This record gives sequence, C-alpha cells and structure tokens, in this order.
Amino acid sequence: MTLSNPLPALSDIPDTIAGVLRIENSDREATTPIIMDMLRSVYPHEQVFGEFCPVQGYIAAPPREVWEYLADTRSLEEWTYSLRGFTATEEPGLWLAHDRLGDSTEIYTRTVANAEAMTVDYHCAWDQGQHLWMIYLMRVIDAQAVLDKPGSVVLWVNCRHPFYDHNPYPETAPAKRPVWVGDFWDMFAAGHQLELDNLKAICEYRAAHGLAIKPDWMRR
Amino acid sequence: MTLSNPLPALSDIPDTIAGVLRIENSDREATTPIIMDMLRSVYPHEQVFGEFCPVQGYIAAPPREVWEYLADTRSLEEWTYSLRGFTATEEPGLWLAHDRLGDSTEIYTRTVANAEAMTVDYHCAWDQGQHLWMIYLMRVIDAQAVLDKPGSVVLWVNCRHPFYDHNPYPETAPAKRPVWVGDFWDMFAAGHQLELDNLKAICEYRAAHGLAIKPDWMRR
Repeated sequence: MTLSNPLPALSDIPDTIAGVLRIENSDREATTPIIMDMLRSVYPHEQVFGEFCPVQGYIAAPPREVWEYLADTRSLEEWTYSLRGFTATEEPGLWLAHDRLGDSTEIYTRTVANAEAMTVDYHCAWDQGQHLWMIYLMRVIDAQAVLDKPGSVVLWVNCRHPFYDHNPYPETAPAKRPVWVGDFWDMFAAGHQLELDNLKAICEYRAAHGLAIKPDWMRR
Repeated sequence: MTLSNPLPALSDIPDTIAGVLRIENSDREATTPIIMDMLRSVYPHEQVFGEFCPVQGYIAAPPREVWEYLADTRSLEEWTYSLRGFTATEEPGLWLAHDRLGDSTEIYTRTVANAEAMTVDYHCAWDQGQHLWMIYLMRVIDAQAVLDKPGSVVLWVNCRHPFYDHNPYPETAPAKRPVWVGDFWDMFAAGHQLELDNLKAICEYRAAHGLAIKPDWMRR
C-alpha cells in the first residue's frame, strides 16, 4: 500500500480555499467532532425540505417497466393526487391537464426522459405552457444494484424555484382563484410522499397480478 | 374547463388498491388532515437518513462543466475527504485508490456517467473490484431551470445496501482492520454534506477565478 499521491490535486489553486476539509488539512481526529456536530437526533422541517424536497422509495416492480410507465406523461393521471384530464396540445410533447387542487386550474406538462440514465423530468406550470418552471426531477434505479433485491428505487426531488413564492404570470391565472401552487410548497414533502406511495401501490399491484406496469391504453 | 376524465386511468385494476389516495376517493377536505398528520416540525435522523441518504446543494459554476468534472473519476481525488491515489487498473474504466478512512484500505471505482441526463454514478467497493455495490448516485441540474439563476444544482443519494451492515467479502479485507465502511453509514449525511461543500468551494473558486472547472491535468 502506498499513501503517496501521484495526482496533482488542486495544483491549479494557489490559495487555501476556505471551508475545504480534506484528510491532508484536517485529519480524522480533527474532523470527527466536526461531523458529529453536523449530526442531529432530529432535523427541522425547513432544513430537510426548505430549499429542496427529496423523497425516495422502494417499489417491488421491474425498474425498466417502472421507468417506461413514468416516462409516459399520462401515468400522472393515475398516480398523482389531483392531475386529471390529460390531453395532447397542438405543440408536440406538450400536454394539458387540470390540477384539481386549484379551482379551474390548467397545468401544462412536458416530459423529458432518458432511457439510459432512467431519469424522468416533468417540466410543468400552472396556467400557461410557455415557461415550464415547476420541474419534478425523478429517477428510477435498479434496486438489485443499490439494495441487493429485485425491484426499483425511485428518487424524486423538487427545487424551490422562486416562482413558488410569487406567481410570475398572474395575468394567466383564472380570476379570483384563491390559491397559488407555491402555497403548497411546505406540504410538498408529505404530498409527494403520498403520491410516491400511490405510485408504489399501483406498480406493485400490477406486478403482483401479472399486469403490465404501463397499461395497454397508454400504449395507444 | 372540463373536469371530465377521458383517460381510462386504472381501468385494468378491478379492485380498490389499499392506500391509493386520489382526489376521486379522498377529496381535499379528507386529504388535508392526512397530509398535515404526515408533516412534522422536526424529523428523526433515522427517518431522513435511515434507508436513503439524500444531500443536495447549489454551486455557482456552469452545470455542463461541473458535470464534466464529476464524470472524471479523478475529481474524487480533490473533493472527497479521504479517497486518494487514483490509478487506472488493467480493467478499462476501473480505478484503484485508497480510502484513508480505513487503515490500508483499497477502494475500487467505476464511473458511469450520462451526458444528456447529466447523471454521474460512482460504483465503488472497498477491498475488491469484482462487485461494486457502494453506489453514489449523483446528478447535475441546470440551476437556471430549477432555481431561476445561473449555476448548478447537485443531487446526491446513496441507498443503504445491506452490505453496509455486513461485509460480504471479509476474505478480501486487510488483516485486523478495525473498521468497515458501513460503520460510517450513520455519519454519511454529514460526511457527504461536508464533501458536497468541498465540491462547491472548489468549483466556485475555479469559476470565480476564470479557471477551468475540470483542471488541465485531468484532461491528459
């Protein structure tokens, strides 16, 4: 074993960068109390779900099929709580639905999926389809690789775009609508968990009953 | 506006699936208290970081360049706390380094990156390079899209593979090594945050000083 370091790490940087902790400048004895001080028995909601809203879960259904299901925008009609009535618009790939959380609220969705990385991103917005700033970042992982069992792991993160705090296109909102999508940000952690639980229950039911994860009607 | 639902959602499923909450079977009045009951002012460490360990952060540096940097296995020599001495093995794409957290501990890494989805997965293992079960799932997102400002968002999740609790290949471990990588699982949340902070500081220093995010020596 050699601890020599043949790679010129950080050799382009003449300064010491404040806050960079590497074993060379902060050994285990120095770093352990720093780590311990970052750990908590409990974490405030704002720290866990303030700027980002990550939820994850295991689904006992094949990852490739779960990805194919999610990659079809119409799957949202099934596993979301309130997105309903998806119809294709005249713009290729752009779907229109209603978010029944809002009164008379239209939601536009464009799904960007990558088969190799098994990512599925839903680019959405309430009221208008020109600027899809609500982005649901999802990814399906083969649970065999990461949990040593068959099935899928689904990762899902939203980032707190400033438009959640402030509707940038109020002129596109229906008159007198009492709510804005961002009013629900603090509930996203639970709401998304609820929807991930829906996704899990639907996929696992289909897998257990020999049904296609992506149903036939979605293949038409 | 129409609330009619032209799509035959869940039409292949004759049963009511337990635990599926949709606005049709659980309206807002019924669901709000369920959501509120899932929310907490604080969450236990085990709930947030028990089975999955998600960390996220914003980096003021261009996403494509941050992705290219991360996609080179040798970047780990710079921004990780303790992985050092990366050398290519005879197996294409498989790198050998030392994890200086363990005494005399070899770590093997194969990086799987997707340029389009900007994912970077480090498939690693202590001691042996045949079964790379420690998988660091990372993804770079354009912050302009999700936070309305230039820069990158980095998502990073590890899943608690059962081998963290039990070394499956003890015969490959150095004699009398006092630690196993899984001993550190409960510290991953803080340790990964520390390393994400390193990554942020290094990338932001380079971006602010007009240096390439991926340094020249890594291009050779």
